[in-house]
Amino acid sequence: MLRRAIDLFNQRGYDATSIADLAQSLGVTKSAIFHHVASKEELLAAALDEALTGLTAAIESAAARHDGASAAQRLRGTVEESVRILAAHLPAVTLLLRVRGNSPVEQDALRRRRVVDESLARLVREAASEGDLRADVDPDVISRLLFGTVNSLVEWYDPAGPVDPDALAHTVTALAFEGLTPR
Amino acid sequence: MLRRAIDLFNQRGYDATSIADLAQSLGVTKSAIFHHVASKEELLAAALDEALTGLTAAIESAAARHDGASAAQRLRGTVEESVRILAAHLPAVTLLLRVRGNSPVEQDALRRRRVVDESLARLVREAASEGDLRADVDPDVISRLLFGTVNSLVEWYDPAGPVDPDALAHTVTALAFEGLTPR
Repeated sequence: MLRRAIDLFNQRGYDATSIADLAQSLGVTKSAIFHHVASKEELLAAALDEALTGLTAAIESAAARHDGASAAQRLRGTVEESVRILAAHLPAVTLLLRVRGNSPVEQDALRRRRVVDESLARLVREAASEGDLRADVDPDVISRLLFGTVNSLVEWYDPAGPVDPDALAHTVTALAFEGLTPR
Repeated sequence: MLRRAIDLFNQRGYDATSIADLAQSLGVTKSAIFHHVASKEELLAAALDEALTGLTAAIESAAARHDGASAAQRLRGTVEESVRILAAHLPAVTLLLRVRGNSPVEQDALRRRRVVDESLARLVREAASEGDLRADVDPDVISRLLFGTVNSLVEWYDPAGPVDPDALAHTVTALAFEGLTPR
Protein backbone atom coordinates (compact mmCIF):
# COMPACT_ATOMS: atom_id res chain seq x y z
CA MET A 1 0.00 0.00 0.00
CA LEU A 2 2.83 2.40 0.86
CA ARG A 3 4.49 1.68 -2.55
CA ARG A 4 1.28 2.53 -4.38
CA ALA A 5 0.70 5.64 -2.29
CA ILE A 6 4.23 6.91 -3.04
CA ASP A 7 3.73 6.29 -6.77
CA LEU A 8 0.45 8.21 -6.77
CA PHE A 9 1.92 11.08 -4.75
CA ASN A 10 4.79 11.33 -7.26
CA GLN A 11 2.53 11.12 -10.32
CA ARG A 12 -0.30 13.43 -9.28
CA GLY A 13 1.19 15.40 -6.41
CA TYR A 14 0.48 14.74 -2.74
CA ASP A 15 -2.23 17.40 -2.40
CA ALA A 16 -4.08 16.17 -5.50
CA THR A 17 -4.16 12.53 -4.29
CA SER A 18 -6.97 11.38 -1.97
CA ILE A 19 -7.39 8.20 0.07
CA ALA A 20 -10.27 7.46 -2.34
CA ASP A 21 -7.79 7.59 -5.28
CA LEU A 22 -5.47 5.22 -3.44
CA ALA A 23 -8.33 2.83 -2.62
CA GLN A 24 -9.45 2.84 -6.25
CA SER A 25 -5.92 2.26 -7.52
CA LEU A 26 -5.52 -0.73 -5.15
CA GLY A 27 -9.02 -2.06 -5.89
CA VAL A 28 -10.05 -1.94 -2.21
CA THR A 29 -12.49 0.15 -0.17
CA LYS A 30 -11.53 3.33 1.68
CA SER A 31 -12.33 1.64 4.98
CA ALA A 32 -9.88 -1.16 4.14
CA ILE A 33 -7.19 1.53 3.92
CA PHE A 34 -8.27 3.27 7.12
CA HIS A 35 -7.98 -0.14 8.80
CA HIS A 36 -4.20 0.25 8.30
CA VAL A 37 -3.51 3.99 8.47
CA ALA A 38 -5.26 6.85 10.22
CA SER A 39 -4.69 9.44 7.50
CA LYS A 40 -3.07 10.30 4.18
CA GLU A 41 -0.48 12.24 6.14
CA GLU A 42 0.58 9.06 7.93
CA LEU A 43 1.45 7.55 4.53
CA LEU A 44 3.44 10.65 3.61
CA ALA A 45 5.29 10.50 6.94
CA ALA A 46 6.15 6.82 6.38
CA ALA A 47 7.38 7.51 2.85
CA LEU A 48 9.57 10.45 3.88
CA ASP A 49 10.88 8.45 6.85
CA GLU A 50 11.92 5.64 4.49
CA ALA A 51 14.02 8.06 2.41
CA LEU A 52 15.46 9.96 5.37
CA THR A 53 16.39 6.90 7.44
CA GLY A 54 18.55 5.60 4.60
CA LEU A 55 20.22 8.94 3.86
CA THR A 56 20.82 9.68 7.55
CA ALA A 57 22.34 6.23 8.09
CA ALA A 58 24.60 6.71 5.06
CA ILE A 59 26.11 9.90 6.40
CA GLU A 60 26.22 8.83 10.05
CA SER A 61 27.98 5.56 9.38
CA ALA A 62 30.56 7.41 7.27
CA ALA A 63 31.06 10.03 9.98
CA ALA A 64 31.45 7.34 12.66
CA ARG A 65 34.16 5.32 10.89
CA HIS A 66 37.04 4.65 13.26
CA ASP A 67 39.40 3.03 10.80
CA GLY A 68 41.64 6.04 10.31
CA ALA A 69 39.87 7.00 7.08
CA SER A 70 40.47 10.62 6.05
CA ALA A 71 37.55 13.02 5.76
CA ALA A 72 37.91 12.80 1.97
CA GLN A 73 37.58 9.00 2.10
CA ARG A 74 34.55 9.27 4.37
CA LEU A 75 33.06 11.90 2.06
CA ARG A 76 33.53 9.62 -0.92
CA GLY A 77 31.92 6.74 0.96
CA THR A 78 28.98 8.95 1.87
CA VAL A 79 28.40 10.05 -1.73
CA GLU A 80 28.65 6.46 -2.95
CA GLU A 81 26.25 5.20 -0.29
CA SER A 82 23.82 8.08 -0.98
CA VAL A 83 23.63 7.02 -4.63
CA ARG A 84 22.89 3.43 -3.57
CA ILE A 85 20.17 4.59 -1.14
CA LEU A 86 18.65 6.76 -3.84
CA ALA A 87 18.65 3.86 -6.32
CA ALA A 88 17.13 1.47 -3.77
CA HIS A 89 14.48 3.94 -2.56
CA LEU A 90 13.98 6.02 -5.69
CA PRO A 91 10.23 6.75 -5.33
CA ALA A 92 10.55 7.71 -1.65
CA VAL A 93 13.58 9.93 -2.30
CA THR A 94 11.80 11.54 -5.29
CA LEU A 95 8.89 12.40 -3.00
CA LEU A 96 11.28 13.76 -0.36
CA LEU A 97 12.98 16.07 -2.86
CA ARG A 98 9.63 17.62 -3.82
CA VAL A 99 8.58 18.43 -0.27
CA ARG A 100 8.14 22.18 0.23
CA GLY A 101 7.16 22.35 3.92
CA ASN A 102 3.38 22.72 3.57
CA SER A 103 2.56 20.79 6.79
CA PRO A 104 4.24 19.74 10.08
CA VAL A 105 5.12 16.36 8.53
CA GLU A 106 6.82 18.11 5.59
CA GLN A 107 8.54 20.61 7.87
CA ASP A 108 9.92 17.78 9.98
CA ALA A 109 11.25 16.09 6.82
CA LEU A 110 12.91 19.34 5.71
CA ARG A 111 14.54 19.63 9.15
CA ARG A 112 15.93 16.10 8.89
CA ARG A 113 17.11 16.82 5.34
CA ARG A 114 18.96 19.90 6.58
CA VAL A 115 20.74 17.80 9.24
CA VAL A 116 21.95 15.45 6.48
CA ASP A 117 23.00 18.42 4.30
CA GLU A 118 24.90 19.98 7.20
CA SER A 119 26.73 16.74 8.01
CA LEU A 120 27.86 16.50 4.40
CA ALA A 121 28.94 20.15 4.37
CA ARG A 122 30.97 19.51 7.54
CA LEU A 123 32.68 16.53 5.93
CA VAL A 124 33.54 18.63 2.85
CA ARG A 125 35.06 21.39 4.99
CA GLU A 126 37.02 18.80 7.00
CA ALA A 127 38.37 17.23 3.81
CA ALA A 128 39.32 20.69 2.53
CA SER A 129 41.14 21.56 5.76
CA GLU A 130 43.05 18.25 5.56
CA GLY A 131 44.26 19.36 2.10
CA ASP A 132 42.48 16.56 0.27
CA LEU A 133 40.25 18.80 -1.85
CA ARG A 134 41.53 21.19 -4.49
CA ALA A 135 42.00 24.61 -2.98
CA ASP A 136 40.53 26.77 -5.78
CA VAL A 137 36.89 25.91 -5.10
CA ASP A 138 34.57 26.95 -2.27
CA PRO A 139 33.74 23.97 0.03
CA ASP A 140 30.17 25.21 0.50
CA VAL A 141 29.60 25.32 -3.25
CA ILE A 142 31.11 21.83 -3.46
CA SER A 143 28.60 20.41 -0.94
CA ARG A 144 25.75 21.92 -2.93
CA LEU A 145 27.10 20.50 -6.19
CA LEU A 146 27.64 17.04 -4.69
CA PHE A 147 24.10 16.85 -3.37
CA GLY A 148 22.76 18.47 -6.53
CA THR A 149 24.46 15.85 -8.68
CA VAL A 150 23.22 12.95 -6.55
CA ASN A 151 19.70 14.36 -6.27
CA SER A 152 19.48 14.99 -10.03
CA LEU A 153 19.49 11.20 -10.49
CA VAL A 154 15.79 11.10 -9.59
CA GLU A 155 15.09 12.96 -12.86
CA TRP A 156 16.26 10.12 -15.09
CA TYR A 157 17.57 7.05 -13.26
CA ASP A 158 15.56 3.89 -13.87
CA PRO A 159 16.41 1.05 -11.44
CA ALA A 160 14.96 -1.40 -13.99
CA GLY A 161 17.18 0.02 -16.76
CA PRO A 162 20.67 -0.96 -17.98
CA VAL A 163 22.72 1.01 -15.40
CA ASP A 164 23.07 -0.92 -12.15
CA PRO A 165 23.36 0.95 -8.82
CA ASP A 166 27.02 -0.01 -8.31
CA ALA A 167 28.02 1.30 -11.75
CA LEU A 168 26.02 4.45 -11.07
CA ALA A 169 27.66 4.97 -7.66
CA HIS A 170 31.07 4.44 -9.28
CA THR A 171 30.38 6.92 -12.09
CA VAL A 172 29.12 9.64 -9.77
CA THR A 173 32.09 9.37 -7.41
CA ALA A 174 34.55 9.06 -10.32
CA LEU A 175 33.17 12.25 -11.87
CA ALA A 176 33.17 14.15 -8.57
CA PHE A 177 36.52 13.05 -7.15
CA GLU A 178 38.81 12.34 -10.10
CA GLY A 179 36.88 14.09 -12.88
CA LEU A 180 36.23 13.04 -16.45
CA THR A 181 39.68 13.85 -17.78
CA PRO A 182 41.93 10.76 -17.65
CA ARG A 183 44.70 11.14 -15.04
CA MET B 1 5.96 42.25 -17.20
CA LEU B 2 7.66 39.08 -18.42
CA ARG B 3 9.97 39.10 -15.33
CA ARG B 4 7.01 39.32 -12.99
CA ALA B 5 5.08 36.65 -14.90
CA ILE B 6 8.05 34.25 -14.67
CA ASP B 7 8.38 34.87 -10.93
CA LEU B 8 4.68 34.19 -10.36
CA PHE B 9 4.76 31.06 -12.53
CA ASN B 10 7.73 29.77 -10.49
CA GLN B 11 6.18 30.64 -7.12
CA ARG B 12 2.63 29.45 -7.65
CA GLY B 13 2.87 27.18 -10.65
CA TYR B 14 1.88 28.15 -14.20
CA ASP B 15 -1.58 26.56 -14.04
CA ALA B 16 -2.40 28.25 -10.72
CA THR B 17 -1.44 31.74 -11.99
CA SER B 18 -4.00 33.84 -13.86
CA ILE B 19 -3.66 37.03 -15.88
CA ALA B 20 -5.70 38.62 -13.08
CA ASP B 21 -2.99 37.58 -10.57
CA LEU B 22 -0.33 39.08 -12.80
CA ALA B 23 -2.31 42.32 -13.22
CA GLN B 24 -2.78 42.58 -9.46
CA SER B 25 0.88 41.90 -8.78
CA LEU B 26 1.89 44.64 -11.26
CA GLY B 27 -0.79 47.06 -10.01
CA VAL B 28 -2.36 47.41 -13.47
CA THR B 29 -5.63 46.31 -15.07
CA LYS B 30 -6.11 43.05 -16.95
CA SER B 31 -6.80 44.99 -20.12
CA ALA B 32 -3.47 46.79 -19.76
CA ILE B 33 -1.83 43.35 -19.89
CA PHE B 34 -3.93 42.20 -22.84
CA HIS B 35 -2.78 45.32 -24.62
CA HIS B 36 0.69 43.70 -24.71
CA VAL B 37 0.04 39.95 -24.91
CA ALA B 38 -2.82 37.90 -26.29
CA SER B 39 -2.74 35.19 -23.62
CA LYS B 40 -1.00 33.74 -20.58
CA GLU B 41 0.44 31.09 -22.86
CA GLU B 42 2.21 33.78 -24.89
CA LEU B 43 4.05 34.81 -21.71
CA LEU B 44 5.02 31.20 -21.02
CA ALA B 45 6.27 30.81 -24.59
CA ALA B 46 8.38 33.98 -24.28
CA ALA B 47 9.85 32.80 -20.96
CA LEU B 48 10.74 29.33 -22.25
CA ASP B 49 12.16 30.86 -25.43
CA GLU B 50 14.43 33.09 -23.33
CA ALA B 51 15.89 30.04 -21.56
CA LEU B 52 16.12 27.85 -24.65
CA THR B 53 17.68 30.48 -26.92
CA GLY B 54 20.57 30.88 -24.48
CA LEU B 55 21.13 27.17 -23.93
CA THR B 56 20.85 26.38 -27.64
CA ALA B 57 23.33 29.14 -28.51
CA ALA B 58 25.75 27.84 -25.86
CA ILE B 59 25.86 24.37 -27.34
CA GLU B 60 25.73 25.44 -30.98
CA SER B 61 28.57 27.91 -30.69
CA ALA B 62 30.68 25.25 -28.95
CA ALA B 63 29.84 22.70 -31.63
CA ALA B 64 30.67 25.17 -34.42
CA ARG B 65 34.14 26.10 -33.16
CA HIS B 66 36.67 25.81 -35.97
CA ASP B 67 39.80 26.50 -33.95
CA GLY B 68 40.95 22.89 -33.73
CA ALA B 69 39.49 22.51 -30.23
CA SER B 70 39.03 18.88 -29.21
CA ALA B 71 35.55 17.58 -28.41
CA ALA B 72 36.55 17.56 -24.72
CA GLN B 73 37.49 21.26 -24.91
CA ARG B 74 34.22 22.09 -26.66
CA LEU B 75 32.33 20.04 -24.06
CA ARG B 76 34.01 21.94 -21.28
CA GLY B 77 33.18 25.24 -22.97
CA THR B 78 29.56 24.18 -23.33
CA VAL B 79 29.23 23.23 -19.67
CA GLU B 80 30.85 26.49 -18.59
CA GLU B 81 28.61 28.55 -20.87
CA SER B 82 25.50 26.64 -19.73
CA VAL B 83 26.26 27.60 -16.12
CA ARG B 84 26.60 31.26 -17.16
CA ILE B 85 23.30 31.14 -19.10
CA LEU B 86 21.60 29.54 -16.13
CA ALA B 87 22.96 32.19 -13.75
CA ALA B 88 21.93 35.03 -16.11
CA HIS B 89 18.45 33.63 -16.82
CA LEU B 90 17.80 31.74 -13.59
CA PRO B 91 14.01 32.32 -13.34
CA ALA B 92 13.41 31.41 -17.00
CA VAL B 93 15.58 28.28 -16.78
CA THR B 94 13.86 27.27 -13.51
CA LEU B 95 10.51 27.51 -15.31
CA LEU B 96 11.85 25.50 -18.25
CA LEU B 97 13.06 22.69 -15.98
CA ARG B 98 9.58 22.33 -14.47
CA VAL B 99 7.78 22.03 -17.79
CA ARG B 100 6.03 18.67 -18.11
CA GLY B 101 4.49 18.92 -21.61
CA ASN B 102 0.91 19.84 -20.66
CA SER B 103 0.29 22.02 -23.75
CA PRO B 104 1.68 22.56 -27.28
CA VAL B 105 3.90 25.40 -25.98
CA GLU B 106 5.34 23.09 -23.30
CA GLN B 107 5.75 20.21 -25.75
CA ASP B 108 7.63 22.48 -28.13
CA ALA B 109 9.93 23.54 -25.27
CA LEU B 110 10.56 19.89 -24.35
CA ARG B 111 11.44 19.17 -27.98
CA ARG B 112 13.96 22.02 -28.04
CA ARG B 113 15.37 20.83 -24.70
CA ARG B 114 15.85 17.35 -26.14
CA VAL B 115 17.79 18.80 -29.09
CA VAL B 116 20.14 20.53 -26.61
CA ASP B 117 20.46 17.31 -24.55
CA GLU B 118 21.25 15.29 -27.67
CA SER B 119 23.90 17.76 -28.84
CA LEU B 120 25.59 17.50 -25.46
CA ALA B 121 25.39 13.70 -25.49
CA ARG B 122 26.99 13.71 -28.97
CA LEU B 123 29.81 15.92 -27.71
CA VAL B 124 30.40 13.57 -24.76
CA ARG B 125 30.56 10.51 -27.03
CA GLU B 126 32.92 12.33 -29.40
CA ALA B 127 35.22 13.29 -26.51
CA ALA B 128 35.13 9.66 -25.28
CA SER B 129 36.02 8.33 -28.73
CA GLU B 130 38.94 10.80 -28.92
CA GLY B 131 40.23 9.26 -25.68
CA ASP B 132 39.80 12.45 -23.67
CA LEU B 133 37.31 11.03 -21.17
CA ARG B 134 38.14 8.27 -18.70
CA ALA B 135 37.18 4.91 -20.17
CA ASP B 136 35.54 3.30 -17.13
CA VAL B 137 32.34 5.34 -17.24
CA ASP B 138 29.40 5.22 -19.64
CA PRO B 139 29.27 8.37 -21.86
CA ASP B 140 25.46 8.41 -21.72
CA VAL B 141 25.49 8.39 -17.93
CA ILE B 142 28.07 11.18 -18.06
CA SER B 143 25.82 13.42 -20.20
CA ARG B 144 22.99 12.89 -17.74
CA LEU B 145 25.23 13.69 -14.79
CA LEU B 146 26.64 16.81 -16.44
CA PHE B 147 23.21 18.21 -17.19
CA GLY B 148 21.92 17.04 -13.80
CA THR B 149 24.72 18.89 -12.02
CA VAL B 150 24.19 22.10 -14.02
CA ASN B 151 20.40 21.96 -13.70
CA SER B 152 20.58 21.34 -9.94
CA LEU B 153 21.93 24.88 -9.59
CA VAL B 154 18.38 26.26 -9.91
CA GLU B 155 17.62 24.63 -6.52
CA TRP B 156 20.01 26.86 -4.57
CA TYR B 157 21.95 29.36 -6.66
CA ASP B 158 21.26 32.99 -5.84
CA PRO B 159 22.60 35.45 -8.44
CA ALA B 160 22.48 38.16 -5.73
CA GLY B 161 24.50 35.98 -3.31
CA PRO B 162 28.27 35.73 -2.70
CA VAL B 163 29.09 33.26 -5.51
CA ASP B 164 29.57 35.05 -8.83
CA PRO B 165 28.69 33.30 -12.11
CA ASP B 166 32.34 32.98 -13.22
CA ALA B 167 33.36 31.31 -9.94
CA LEU B 168 30.34 29.04 -10.21
CA ALA B 169 31.16 28.09 -13.81
CA HIS B 170 34.76 27.40 -12.78
CA THR B 171 33.74 25.23 -9.82
CA VAL B 172 31.28 23.15 -11.85
CA THR B 173 33.77 22.47 -14.65
CA ALA B 174 36.62 21.87 -12.17
CA LEU B 175 34.51 19.27 -10.34
CA ALA B 176 33.35 17.59 -13.54
CA PHE B 177 36.60 17.54 -15.51
CA GLU B 178 39.44 17.36 -12.96
CA GLY B 179 37.52 16.27 -9.89
CA LEU B 180 37.81 17.40 -6.28
CA THR B 181 40.96 15.45 -5.48
CA PRO B 182 44.06 17.60 -6.06
CA ARG B 183 46.06 16.36 -9.05
